[in-house]
Amino acid sequence: VPPRFYVPDLDPRSERIPLPDEEAEHLSRVMRLGAGAEVEIFDGRGGLWRAEVVQAGKRAVFVKPIAKAKPAAEATVAITLVACVLKSDKMDDVIRDAVMLGVAAIQPVVSARTEVSLSNLARGRRADRWQRIAVSSAKQCGRAVVPPVREAITLDQYWQAESGEPRLFCAEPKASLEGEGFSRRLLHDIPSPPSAHLIVGPEGGWTLTEVASAVDARAILITLGARTLRADAVPIVALTALLTVWGELR
Amino acid sequence: VPPRFYVPDLDPRSERIPLPDEEAEHLSRVMRLGAGAEVEIFDGRGGLWRAEVVQAGKRAVFVKPIAKAKPAAEATVAITLVACVLKSDKMDDVIRDAVMLGVAAIQPVVSARTEVSLSNLARGRRADRWQRIAVSSAKQCGRAVVPPVREAITLDQYWQAESGEPRLFCAEPKASLEGEGFSRRLLHDIPSPPSAHLIVGPEGGWTLTEVASAVDARAILITLGARTLRADAVPIVALTALLTVWGELR
Repeated sequence: VPPRFYVPDLDPRSERIPLPDEEAEHLSRVMRLGAGAEVEIFDGRGGLWRAEVVQAGKRAVFVKPIAKAKPAAEATVAITLVACVLKSDKMDDVIRDAVMLGVAAIQPVVSARTEVSLSNLARGRRADRWQRIAVSSAKQCGRAVVPPVREAITLDQYWQAESGEPRLFCAEPKASLEGEGFSRRLLHDIPSPPSAHLIVGPEGGWTLTEVASAVDARAILITLGARTLRADAVPIVALTALLTVWGELR
Repeated sequence: VPPRFYVPDLDPRSERIPLPDEEAEHLSRVMRLGAGAEVEIFDGRGGLWRAEVVQAGKRAVFVKPIAKAKPAAEATVAITLVACVLKSDKMDDVIRDAVMLGVAAIQPVVSARTEVSLSNLARGRRADRWQRIAVSSAKQCGRAVVPPVREAITLDQYWQAESGEPRLFCAEPKASLEGEGFSRRLLHDIPSPPSAHLIVGPEGGWTLTEVASAVDARAILITLGARTLRADAVPIVALTALLTVWGELR
């Protein structure tokens, strides 16, 4: 497989497409490729091309598209992962794995028990970092789509945004919700929609008020079973289970 | 939920059960519990009891069982995860997640592209470390069963051991196996057996010889879909997908 480079605003009719700075540096300094090398370029919106390096200088790299190529298939259900922000590198892993499993978008949220605030996230420029991780994961897994990682919002703000899509709310862990009268559905019983939101909680779990707010917002409460999963494993387990039920892992 | 302690050789008829050294230290020094504290003890074979601390000294801790308790449900399909050893902490995560998802046993294997040797594993006492991780994960996820982590063997040794169970071999990544004439089945098409082995590869993937050896051993080649997953995500994704298909995530 030739090395892949991300060129978000590429015009495939051009004979001389400049790579963005970071990608140019990766091609010339890290991979030490020069003119004539065969690569792949993708636009992050589903377009993938075989291409040839036509110029690789210290500052600028230009490539020429040769032919359209076939990227890894996209899921037919467009899933938005709505994930409470986990501690630093755990959230990086969530972004990376979610892209690899084929999500259409990622919406980070901050809930009552999330251990980081919106202002901390903004100060740390975490949104930029996550978007870079999404690009890198798309490269590795063979997708030509780079799912947008949206600006983090509070759970309340998330509920207030209108959505015609089914919202599946992972009401875990089971133990702390039992006897509270919340009824939860099994993933198997949820038919495949054209698009859906999957909502997963933080390390400390949801508060009962938050679970009630999900019910108020007409979200569908779901469960992943009897064992208590770690918060950082829940997104990948929940996504995999949904993709399996909806016949997407093929 | 009261804190849980692992007592592998516990006799529930005893009024005065000693905790193993490590567990005793955890109870008295880390959690600073004393006589009268309520805890749970489990034997790693499915037995779980509510218990009371009757003595908590510097060197020894004794507890008295009060009543049998109900642990998290075990999966009805006994899955043995046969996993190529990944780099240090990645393999720790695989063990932890596999226990959390409910496997019955873990068999580490070394394949052609595995980056660590059997003798290195033995020297580093990795088997002991993995078994401790299995205990700790069982505590966290609510299982009263501690799955055995077996001594690492080579892939060839693994094939030579007789097994009446279906052996599902994750033949990833798709790209490098296409056009090689191997046919792979979708997870959806595999009916639920009483027990099964799930075999996953190392960071560098399988060699073609190894895939052929799987076919010779009558393993069932399976695929997780079109996108290339990271090696350290494959065990959790494959396990989740199987558990979903077999109706175990409930």
